Amino acid sequence: MDETSGHLAALIDDLVTANHILFHQAVLDSFGHVSARHPDNAGHFLMSRAMAPGLVTAADIAELDLDGHRISEGNQSLYVERFIHSEIYKARADVHAIVHSHSPTVIPFSITQEPLKPAYHRASFLHSGVPVFEIRDVAGAKNNMLVNDATRGRALAEVLGASNVALMRGHGNVVVATRLRLAVSRAIETEVNAKLQLQALMIGGPINYLTADEAETLESELARTKPSDSRGADRVWEVLKRQARSQTERNS
Amino acid sequence: MDETSGHLAALIDDLVTANHILFHQAVLDSFGHVSARHPDNAGHFLMSRAMAPGLVTAADIAELDLDGHRISEGNQSLYVERFIHSEIYKARADVHAIVHSHSPTVIPFSITQEPLKPAYHRASFLHSGVPVFEIRDVAGAKNNMLVNDATRGRALAEVLGASNVALMRGHGNVVVATRLRLAVSRAIETEVNAKLQLQALMIGGPINYLTADEAETLESELARTKPSDSRGADRVWEVLKRQARSQTERNS
Amino acid sequence: MDETSGHLAALIDDLVTANHILFHQAVLDSFGHVSARHPDNAGHFLMSRAMAPGLVTAADIAELDLDGHRISEGNQSLYVERFIHSEIYKARADVHAIVHSHSPTVIPFSITQEPLKPAYHRASFLHSGVPVFEIRDVAGAKNNMLVNDATRGRALAEVLGASNVALMRGHGNVVVATRLRLAVSRAIETEVNAKLQLQALMIGGPINYLTADEAETLESELARTKPSDSRGADRVWEVLKRQARSQTERNS
Amino acid sequence: MDETSGHLAALIDDLVTANHILFHQAVLDSFGHVSARHPDNAGHFLMSRAMAPGLVTAADIAELDLDGHRISEGNQSLYVERFIHSEIYKARADVHAIVHSHSPTVIPFSITQEPLKPAYHRASFLHSGVPVFEIRDVAGAKNNMLVNDATRGRALAEVLGASNVALMRGHGNVVVATRLRLAVSRAIETEVNAKLQLQALMIGGPINYLTADEAETLESELARTKPSDSRGADRVWEVLKRQARSQTERNS
Repeated sequence: MDETSGHLAALIDDLVTANHILFHQAVLDSFGHVSARHPDNAGHFLMSRAMAPGLVTAADIAELDLDGHRISEGNQSLYVERFIHSEIYKARADVHAIVHSHSPTVIPFSITQEPLKPAYHRASFLHSGVPVFEIRDVAGAKNNMLVNDATRGRALAEVLGASNVALMRGHGNVVVATRLRLAVSRAIETEVNAKLQLQALMIGGPINYLTADEAETLESELARTKPSDSRGADRVWEVLKRQARSQTERNS
Repeated sequence: MDETSGHLAALIDDLVTANHILFHQAVLDSFGHVSARHPDNAGHFLMSRAMAPGLVTAADIAELDLDGHRISEGNQSLYVERFIHSEIYKARADVHAIVHSHSPTVIPFSITQEPLKPAYHRASFLHSGVPVFEIRDVAGAKNNMLVNDATRGRALAEVLGASNVALMRGHGNVVVATRLRLAVSRAIETEVNAKLQLQALMIGGPINYLTADEAETLESELARTKPSDSRGADRVWEVLKRQARSQTERNS
Repeated sequence: MDETSGHLAALIDDLVTANHILFHQAVLDSFGHVSARHPDNAGHFLMSRAMAPGLVTAADIAELDLDGHRISEGNQSLYVERFIHSEIYKARADVHAIVHSHSPTVIPFSITQEPLKPAYHRASFLHSGVPVFEIRDVAGAKNNMLVNDATRGRALAEVLGASNVALMRGHGNVVVATRLRLAVSRAIETEVNAKLQLQALMIGGPINYLTADEAETLESELARTKPSDSRGADRVWEVLKRQARSQTERNS
Repeated sequence: MDETSGHLAALIDDLVTANHILFHQAVLDSFGHVSARHPDNAGHFLMSRAMAPGLVTAADIAELDLDGHRISEGNQSLYVERFIHSEIYKARADVHAIVHSHSPTVIPFSITQEPLKPAYHRASFLHSGVPVFEIRDVAGAKNNMLVNDATRGRALAEVLGASNVALMRGHGNVVVATRLRLAVSRAIETEVNAKLQLQALMIGGPINYLTADEAETLESELARTKPSDSRGADRVWEVLKRQARSQTERNS
């Protein structure tokens, strides 16, 4: 990855940090992955080679094309589920970052009949609806639960549609955004919201979720906000980056 | 902020610590804020500029008036929801400190029909009742869920009335007190109490909450206690300050 | 506290450690207390002066008599609830250590109708039954929820009877044992058991608690075990002492 | 244990790490144990002497035969429940590593009527069924809840049958695997899955567990995967080993 331009190097640096933040926030465990579309080539994206997110360094970041082939040098294993990313980037020109995780409190919503809904304003991005991807529909009854080829990735991208989050039945979820730090923030908030919703369900309904009007008003406002305003994703990023860096150093 | 008197400097120091304690106790996340009325000018209050509470330093503390205008020098962004604070200080002469948070277990009580009640004696300050602020009542159906102007702040202050805590539907809560350390302690206890009440609801009722007699007896007794007696808020403060300082140092 | 004999110094050292362990295990918060009967004088007991358990040092340990009066030198405040300890030591000659805590998952069982029962073998000491102390019965409707005099302490001791644990409605619990390390281990297991029982209740019954036969068989076996066998309380103590020491050092 | 061959020394090193990982992941508390079959002698196995798993060092690893007798030198106490291990190794030639734990969220499933089932793909090894061992069936009504002789161990091994996990009523669980790192990973996933299943039960059914087809497909695929592929147990191991080492060092 010679001659990386400054903004590419900055994005790779953020991608490493994103891996560490999501691991230390317990959104990613030893599995799951986060990617970013290449800033100079919309047909490529960046993600770590196959390894535990908590250990990723810049040298582990590979460049892939939208068929899931490695473009950068190297021959170490790639994530078998990289097709989650490649097919969503193909289908959604607006998406520039994707998190796939086994975020723990989200999984129960993938195997029950209760749709995930925005329980508080920080999860307004759920207003687009949170569809559940059933892998049996594309891979048949004898499947291995993994989105490990382009066909399955395409089917997942279709279920995701125009939404920001899709659940994967008995597996995890995928979160998309227009930029990396926003995807990280949304992945964290998806877990937080699942906890809030679960607790509200335990208290008992009726539950006052955000209305479509409220969520859309807030989302369109956030979309107009500059990152430098320190509102939303970038404020989350700065403080969690410090925590993750401190924890990563202690574990190295 | 030249020529700060000794007690002002001490209050600013406590305000920085309050930010760190509430962050490390997970009452504040990357959002939320804590403020204190100015010790020498009841028409002003102190709070951080817009940033993650876990990173606040003394240099970030701004002085504002009760219309939410900055009095101290500087041009960095302020919290868009500073009107929560300014309008409560206007309405409640007895209040000298305010915490606004997304305290996680409290939010489910803001979107269900179950009132928050004192489940144990350390939450006796909830005896005043915990009203729920519905932002639609003041901001209409197409609102952004934020108390980001004086009108909304005033409406919230009205709902709060003479209580110590008000919930904000689908958003968070606000906790007030006669002094900063007490507000911090109450914000933590509000979260603890929400967890206790949720678990009691899961076990099933009838639930023996503190009676009004018990809560009032305890609260009036605490009100007569000197901070130096190491009972109540100051005991909490000392040990949590040490933890927060240690964690803050590791993350810096 | 001059001329402390070797075993007294060792007990004081253990009492300081007990405070730190119970704080770092989140059984004690900024409140609650742990005491031990004086090894050379059954009419006296040792406990910290009034302060946060996480900060206790050997210099903070006071010696009290069974009326709750300080015997050792010093004039710093004592815990207002020291009568929990003095009256139980008076009533129960077999008891040599007591923990009073606001152990969080135990409190919900004090305000609902579900008795705490041994859900797993490590909580076999609950087989004696876990009565709930209702302070209104002794202190009337307008009470401050605190066991802050000998009359209330005596009433609590009567409710405890021959049991190892009693709950205090809307307040916390008290755990007793024949020695300090066992009391610490039991206080931790009481919290663990409350979590297990709560989860079992959520899954739904019927629930197979330990039978009286099983709990009594195990308890009588543990009573015959020497501490040096590293079974039971002492094994817990060694590993938690290391954790607590490391955390205490980081916070100092 | 002189002249240990290289692969034996490596296994002992892994066994020490397994103790620390499982302790820091809160699968083991101060009790529970992990063992590995001897690499050069299928009639022997390795496990720590009786002590808290968080403190185990290589010098504490003993070699035992399948009757639970110590083969290596030394006279320190052994775990009274070593017969869990010896009898399973006797009954199951395919098993090379065993974890016995009080993994907290698993215990409630041992005392209720809800079978543990694979809620997500990482727990596909539960597809073999998770039987519950009732110690009363072998040890009678007046039992001490412990598998502390060969007869009880044999009865547990019979209940386990060909499964990967068995629950022990009111006590804990046992997890087996063909190699140590896989047993560690499965013990962690068993706890994760119990949490997922409990939450799904709270949301309410019907619950879409993994089908037998799906779990078997995934398990047979994992069985063909080389450890060096960094898929499955070894990826988990690397990152958790770093965390455990860092935490162990801080506590020493």
